[in-house]
Amino acid sequence: MSTPAKAFAAQSATTPLGPWNFERRTPGPNDVAFEILFCGVCHSDLHQSRDEWHDFAPTTYPLVPGHEIVGRVTAVGSEVKKFKVGDTVATGCMVDSCGVCPLCKADMEMFCIQGMTLTYNSPDKHTGKVTYGGYSDSIVVDQRFVLNVPENLDLAATAPLLCAGITTYSPLHHWKAGPGKKVGIIGLGGLGHMGVKFSHALGAHTVLFTTSANKVEDGKRLGADEVVISKNADEMAKHAWSFDFILDCVSAEHDVNAYLSLLKVDGTLCTVGAPQKPLPVAAFNLIFGRRSYSGSAIGGIAETQEMLDFCGKHNIVSDIEIIPIQKINEAYDRMLKSDVKYRFVIDMASLKG
Amino acid sequence: MSTPAKAFAAQSATTPLGPWNFERRTPGPNDVAFEILFCGVCHSDLHQSRDEWHDFAPTTYPLVPGHEIVGRVTAVGSEVKKFKVGDTVATGCMVDSCGVCPLCKADMEMFCIQGMTLTYNSPDKHTGKVTYGGYSDSIVVDQRFVLNVPENLDLAATAPLLCAGITTYSPLHHWKAGPGKKVGIIGLGGLGHMGVKFSHALGAHTVLFTTSANKVEDGKRLGADEVVISKNADEMAKHAWSFDFILDCVSAEHDVNAYLSLLKVDGTLCTVGAPQKPLPVAAFNLIFGRRSYSGSAIGGIAETQEMLDFCGKHNIVSDIEIIPIQKINEAYDRMLKSDVKYRFVIDMASLKG
Repeated sequence: MSTPAKAFAAQSATTPLGPWNFERRTPGPNDVAFEILFCGVCHSDLHQSRDEWHDFAPTTYPLVPGHEIVGRVTAVGSEVKKFKVGDTVATGCMVDSCGVCPLCKADMEMFCIQGMTLTYNSPDKHTGKVTYGGYSDSIVVDQRFVLNVPENLDLAATAPLLCAGITTYSPLHHWKAGPGKKVGIIGLGGLGHMGVKFSHALGAHTVLFTTSANKVEDGKRLGADEVVISKNADEMAKHAWSFDFILDCVSAEHDVNAYLSLLKVDGTLCTVGAPQKPLPVAAFNLIFGRRSYSGSAIGGIAETQEMLDFCGKHNIVSDIEIIPIQKINEAYDRMLKSDVKYRFVIDMASLKG
Repeated sequence: MSTPAKAFAAQSATTPLGPWNFERRTPGPNDVAFEILFCGVCHSDLHQSRDEWHDFAPTTYPLVPGHEIVGRVTAVGSEVKKFKVGDTVATGCMVDSCGVCPLCKADMEMFCIQGMTLTYNSPDKHTGKVTYGGYSDSIVVDQRFVLNVPENLDLAATAPLLCAGITTYSPLHHWKAGPGKKVGIIGLGGLGHMGVKFSHALGAHTVLFTTSANKVEDGKRLGADEVVISKNADEMAKHAWSFDFILDCVSAEHDVNAYLSLLKVDGTLCTVGAPQKPLPVAAFNLIFGRRSYSGSAIGGIAETQEMLDFCGKHNIVSDIEIIPIQKINEAYDRMLKSDVKYRFVIDMASLKG
């Protein structure tokens, strides 16, 4: 049993995304079906549409990207108590996990020992095919992976919280960004602009690092106490040995050693930007100061709900530009030029036309 | 006022070490003077004799190396209460620090904000020259940097505890190696063999990684529960996602990513081997599992005393080969070929001849 769904899909690594029709499963007892209202556009969507992560996550075509999903419940299974028809809900990067391993039990479903089921391009145990993401008019998700959206938040601007939001909130929370701490955010893009907002809202003294002098003003507007132009060695040197934590949101190749040396003793530089090429790390930058170079991946479901509730309380959403789905290929091209402040969000009403 | 001292020194980067006479300061009120009985031979001694760390710690000649020093007290200043003439004492890599900065106050003198005074080749505030190390018949050290040696330990085999010992004990202790934890030690040399002994004594399940099949037996004798030949990819793969902590004692270039992928969620790979060339680190190895690549430098004075007391309690010393000072140049050559099990220690009586 299944229900027809409309989507935009990539049919190969080299063709632009275009309309594609497929079937969503009929909701089972634990499923929540919802109409997708908005879907954020993440850089991963572009990577996977073009099979750029072929070596460790090859793309199965057709690919329906999208894992920053906000919508309205249209049906719930018999066992679903937490959600009802009409509720505003969200789903992020994952839609399933084993639920029984120690890491799932510890609310770290993203590290599920059996492997989480990603929202798109992941084996789908229900259909035997792959999962299809949020560039679509509807989705069916196990209730464990459905989140409540606080009522006061703008729905379109909430969508990017499901990936860019949790990806930056989780490490800031884990490494205890807060009052009395000095926190750096490297790069002002989709991730970085959320990092600045969260670090500021958590009460840390927040320093934005950017290569672009024309981002200084925007950095401050978003909550940075200071903005450092990272190309200026003198300006960088002034901050040596001063940071408790630095969140690295840059996906391009860059010199992490320049930032490691800005950390205090026992400080951590955490990458969420995920550069594809391994970056050289000088051991002496770690040894002197017992510093750490770390990474972080999204966050667990409980922490994602906590992040959404935090956003509700502090009125935090993403800065976005709304596009119709028909502009998605153009949006990818603009994203590659960093020509977006700071996240594209697709208005799914455009798919009905 | 000063006292004549005999030593072996390097006069340039390219000349072998040979006899050299100089002066030690007369002990001040807070000083402890002691006859040096034994001095361990650390790889740093060789690096600095040959000015191989020129870029960040250029060598001032003549250089008297040696920072694994055990001896007997010959004189104490008027303010010294903790030590008396005849006591068996030790000194490690540092002989002074500001004593008032937050890091000194937190027993992390090695990260003193003003910079610790290293035992050799460091500006000496008493003489205006540089400090001279343990390849010498005597030394004068501020009491804050003098340590007690437990009575039951062999004195020659105790010397390497002052650098190789604390360098491995400190990170194992900091990252909580102990019962229920799985700990890896990479490389069986001067540092690694102490890492194996400490990890075992702390109660962790200890796995030695080595490239040499002929080190398996020795690894087990020293306390390893398992020995993995790191060149064997299948054997390595069996340990994926299983380590709480891995201590990397390798100073040569090597692939740290192979070890990062063996860590559990929130696990740490800590380098103390200090490879000179920055090593490539793949972000995905950090992101998946929120893993950390970290470093550690010796340890504070309180922790060094704790380590010595731990060694006294567990009867832990270094495996050594004793040499006369006249064989130091030969020892350097053999050290470069890893032809030592596992640390050379100079018997300073040989200097009297």
